Amino acid sequence: MTGRKSFGSDNHTGVHPAVLRAIMEANSGDAVPYGADPLTERVTARLGETFQAEGGAFLVLTGSGANVLGLSVLLRRHEAVICAQSAHINTDECGAAERLVGTKLLAVPTPDGKLTPELIAEQLDGRGDEHFAQPGVVALSQVTELGTCYTLAELAKIADFCRASDLRVFLDGARLANAAAHLDCSLAELAECADVLTFGGTKNGAMGAEALIVMGGSFAADVPYLRKQQTHLTSKMRFVAAQFGALLEGGLWRSNAAHANAMARRLADGVRDVDGVELVHPVQANGVFARLKPRHIAALREDWTFGVWNERVSVVRWMTAFDTSAEDVDAFLAGIRSTADR
Amino acid sequence: MTGRKSFGSDNHTGVHPAVLRAIMEANSGDAVPYGADPLTERVTARLGETFQAEGGAFLVLTGSGANVLGLSVLLRRHEAVICAQSAHINTDECGAAERLVGTKLLAVPTPDGKLTPELIAEQLDGRGDEHFAQPGVVALSQVTELGTCYTLAELAKIADFCRASDLRVFLDGARLANAAAHLDCSLAELAECADVLTFGGTKNGAMGAEALIVMGGSFAADVPYLRKQQTHLTSKMRFVAAQFGALLEGGLWRSNAAHANAMARRLADGVRDVDGVELVHPVQANGVFARLKPRHIAALREDWTFGVWNERVSVVRWMTAFDTSAEDVDAFLAGIRSTADR
Amino acid sequence: MTGRKSFGSDNHTGVHPAVLRAIMEANSGDAVPYGADPLTERVTARLGETFQAEGGAFLVLTGSGANVLGLSVLLRRHEAVICAQSAHINTDECGAAERLVGTKLLAVPTPDGKLTPELIAEQLDGRGDEHFAQPGVVALSQVTELGTCYTLAELAKIADFCRASDLRVFLDGARLANAAAHLDCSLAELAECADVLTFGGTKNGAMGAEALIVMGGSFAADVPYLRKQQTHLTSKMRFVAAQFGALLEGGLWRSNAAHANAMARRLADGVRDVDGVELVHPVQANGVFARLKPRHIAALREDWTFGVWNERVSVVRWMTAFDTSAEDVDAFLAGIRSTADR
Amino acid sequence: MTGRKSFGSDNHTGVHPAVLRAIMEANSGDAVPYGADPLTERVTARLGETFQAEGGAFLVLTGSGANVLGLSVLLRRHEAVICAQSAHINTDECGAAERLVGTKLLAVPTPDGKLTPELIAEQLDGRGDEHFAQPGVVALSQVTELGTCYTLAELAKIADFCRASDLRVFLDGARLANAAAHLDCSLAELAECADVLTFGGTKNGAMGAEALIVMGGSFAADVPYLRKQQTHLTSKMRFVAAQFGALLEGGLWRSNAAHANAMARRLADGVRDVDGVELVHPVQANGVFARLKPRHIAALREDWTFGVWNERVSVVRWMTAFDTSAEDVDAFLAGIRSTADR
Repeated sequence: MTGRKSFGSDNHTGVHPAVLRAIMEANSGDAVPYGADPLTERVTARLGETFQAEGGAFLVLTGSGANVLGLSVLLRRHEAVICAQSAHINTDECGAAERLVGTKLLAVPTPDGKLTPELIAEQLDGRGDEHFAQPGVVALSQVTELGTCYTLAELAKIADFCRASDLRVFLDGARLANAAAHLDCSLAELAECADVLTFGGTKNGAMGAEALIVMGGSFAADVPYLRKQQTHLTSKMRFVAAQFGALLEGGLWRSNAAHANAMARRLADGVRDVDGVELVHPVQANGVFARLKPRHIAALREDWTFGVWNERVSVVRWMTAFDTSAEDVDAFLAGIRSTADR
Repeated sequence: MTGRKSFGSDNHTGVHPAVLRAIMEANSGDAVPYGADPLTERVTARLGETFQAEGGAFLVLTGSGANVLGLSVLLRRHEAVICAQSAHINTDECGAAERLVGTKLLAVPTPDGKLTPELIAEQLDGRGDEHFAQPGVVALSQVTELGTCYTLAELAKIADFCRASDLRVFLDGARLANAAAHLDCSLAELAECADVLTFGGTKNGAMGAEALIVMGGSFAADVPYLRKQQTHLTSKMRFVAAQFGALLEGGLWRSNAAHANAMARRLADGVRDVDGVELVHPVQANGVFARLKPRHIAALREDWTFGVWNERVSVVRWMTAFDTSAEDVDAFLAGIRSTADR
Repeated sequence: MTGRKSFGSDNHTGVHPAVLRAIMEANSGDAVPYGADPLTERVTARLGETFQAEGGAFLVLTGSGANVLGLSVLLRRHEAVICAQSAHINTDECGAAERLVGTKLLAVPTPDGKLTPELIAEQLDGRGDEHFAQPGVVALSQVTELGTCYTLAELAKIADFCRASDLRVFLDGARLANAAAHLDCSLAELAECADVLTFGGTKNGAMGAEALIVMGGSFAADVPYLRKQQTHLTSKMRFVAAQFGALLEGGLWRSNAAHANAMARRLADGVRDVDGVELVHPVQANGVFARLKPRHIAALREDWTFGVWNERVSVVRWMTAFDTSAEDVDAFLAGIRSTADR
Repeated sequence: MTGRKSFGSDNHTGVHPAVLRAIMEANSGDAVPYGADPLTERVTARLGETFQAEGGAFLVLTGSGANVLGLSVLLRRHEAVICAQSAHINTDECGAAERLVGTKLLAVPTPDGKLTPELIAEQLDGRGDEHFAQPGVVALSQVTELGTCYTLAELAKIADFCRASDLRVFLDGARLANAAAHLDCSLAELAECADVLTFGGTKNGAMGAEALIVMGGSFAADVPYLRKQQTHLTSKMRFVAAQFGALLEGGLWRSNAAHANAMARRLADGVRDVDGVELVHPVQANGVFARLKPRHIAALREDWTFGVWNERVSVVRWMTAFDTSAEDVDAFLAGIRSTADR
């Protein structure tokens, strides 16, 4: 790292002070392990209420762990998953879904990372024919990997289609807080479309905490066993619960996300008039995707930390976080402008 | 929990203050994620040196995760594992090895949780016959689930046998620190027998941190991919590294373990003369296994937290931890004595 | 092979002439593949009726394939299987259940290869505790690997226990015909205890044909996909169906099995008075298990083909088949007697 | 079926008379099971020589079984497979590779079913980054699912690229005989590019017989165990061997394939001048892909059996087989012409 604020990812950040405080407070005396302690019970109950999730909430340690657990809860043994080609489960988890769940991902090219009923329907041609992989789950990402958000209306349309088509809906919510902030809606409204979803804490200010939210009660029975079998039942669970406790307290999750989103918008607004910088996706959450000249990318990376999203088309990704300040953005903007002038 | 010190398990404890301090110190500014940060690099390098591990050290989040990762590194695709019937991988991980690694566990009954070359040899009858599961790995637990430790000589004999028999050695070291303290040897000496082992931090005072130690360089190449695929590559890795950093600093891991061991010995010594309490395994680490009358167990559990190990034979397990005090032990002893008198 | 009749296994035999004839007759012109042809439909319908199987019959190519398919139909994703330690799925399939189904086998030592409600009950201690493998299926073998048969009353008791305990019953019927012949009962009566079972054709005179019989209708829906995914949907299915057609015709399966059983009894009766030969299991089907002196075993194997079942206790297995003649048995008996005299 | 010759697939046919004869001849007396019989040893040795395969030949029962076995031999535990999007393993095996091998298929769109070094190279961007699936194997189909054949030069180019890139080559040869006939080359020449390949018997006139050919000796050691574990070790193996024995005898495999290819060419030549019928892929083996008006397809299917390859673009697939006669083709051509006139 350069000393300057990283725009590489919202997981370059440390831990929000309130989260760290909650961890320290949780460290008093003994507690029964594996999540049977009072703090975990209180926090997971509150998560369940927040999402109006009949099946409850289950804490795990990583986003990939949450995704694998969620898919394994929803899939029949032989079924496949329909997802966007850009989905994290398809591109960024080293084949975890195929290896740990044993499922085929039917990856659909999309312009903006978002599935639609029409795109889903095209994957159903082989249904009922034993030779073809049989879709059982549609996996959405909210926020998508391209920084876009499904609207509530889009989610409802997909959910209606899926329910009518015997497809369950999984929602990867590693950045769900950012979507709720962008759409100015509740987490429960976002979750309505889904049978099972994840709610990411880590990118929102936690140290390492993710939640699996089980909307339908019928899917909950096997989760404890699957979580243990998939090696995510940590013994000192109270310290994971404490993190979510802090994020839920006073709506910290929402203010963290709203701030990150605002910083991304500030960044996007700041580059709109910069020659040679082209925004390639709507900026709806805390990511800005932009096309720059390759030599400008190289020059900018000498001073700043961020990722090249797609080298072939010269697109970069700039991420903001709960602790990105307006000054950080403005300094970065100055750097972009000065680079673009060269 | 009752307010009194738990003797239920060494994971009922909270986090050692030095570990918590290290976590807080690690929370300064941004860091590259996924373990490429300087702190993680420093701590894993130090772990590697400590174990004289050519293949290096890799941090993961749970003991089950470390076990699954370690086995998957060592096993050829079709191979099976020889382990003690009491092994944690066999009895306490909800079938993770079978489900995630796809391997058969050839579980061997043992009196004391310890395998021997003779017991291992009996599992090799079907070698070379494609109908039988083919052992490729011997999995040892050090400390065993019964609180016993292999001596260095016993480990060397097993290692010699395994090397001569084309068997790799995996060592589940969830309580390796306690074994090193008991045997008064270095971690490197304990690791010599193994191709891959785990080094547990969580039961030693960490919040949630385990390490996979790869002794042979040839086994290291695939570990990063397998760790990611198995969903244990946490993004804010520095906070896991910080925990091991604190435990390694000034030999805290050893003093924590030595203290826990001493408290178990104090407890064992204290019950030797109590009528109706029979120690059923040598007390070598931080666990005391004792047979009590069922009604004494029930009475004692009204006031104290501990586990019934085997209800059928009326055996309980009392565990001590880094933060169990002599006063805690003495109070518990008084409780045991007063119960035994009834 | 020595030219003399093999007593090694009922799969040393060739194909029954009626089966071969049926294969030849099936070879007329084109047929739609993958089991949608009229012959397959006719034969599987007849199998379904024979077993009074609501869920129907599905043809596969090997016994191991049938076992894996059957278990995968019955098991929830995280569940384990209770079976006898001697079960074929545990000892003779190179870990297929663990690798392909991802399930743990809870293998129970038994004197005679037969489970009982009591033995099953002992495996249920950890139920509801996420740390322990959760039994979901009880797997029986009928005939057992030790040549013994469950009586209908024993099966009913197990089935009652399992239904009351939320356990599904799988029955490995690689030699089910021999059990039906021994018990003088119908296949439907044998199947009543099970949710899913296999019906072996290969050891009964087929070339290579096994059937999965799905008793409960609710288990049938996924079978076609699982069979295809598990690579047992052969394209020219009519030639597998033809084999079962021939075995069902005129009760050939029963007469083949009854004959093999009779030959085993003839063999067992013949050795009862031979000094140095001790029968170690009741002879109820087509296998004879006997203890001989090691040097007698070695001498006898110079002239005859059969297997050493357990070298450590000097027990051999002699198998008879549909084409073992009384003369074959008598010649073998003469060999045994002459060896035992030496 | 309509009574008329099927153009649906080369697996609608029955068994070649020579194959059936060989099966009957193999049915004489006992044989040691599981492939240790002399016939299997002779035939697999001959297969190995034919392919100049250092690692030998292994018989299995289905094409999907051969593909799963082959991939599992070549892949490290975490690795992925690069294949054409149209590959059988990707589209026609109900997700077997993902479920049984646990591997991700990186499916590449191609115009003609053929991969190239350039297309493969595009899949290597994420190599060495633990977040991305790591390609370890390139899977080719020869003949491709679109009826096209790689030339020997194309194969050599791919093999060179793969060897230089630490990628192993798997070749799905379900219709390898047809490719050899089209290219007028030996099987060994076709196999040179591959580390492991399959050689299909079933579509060439067998009843149900496929071979896994292991070119490099280092890959052979685990095959017997993997084949057993994957449930394809049939006990009466001699009857599978007999089928390949017949196909190898006097080059029957080649004449069968050459005949089928010739019939496809006759069919293709016959439709070239028919209005409303457009050939959409080069006809190089025994498949003809043609675009017809939807109503013409429907009308033709009233009398003839064949498959609609892609309903969205109105493309059908006509397959010929070893037993398709010139009269069959001419009658079908007459049907096509008469339909096209309507």
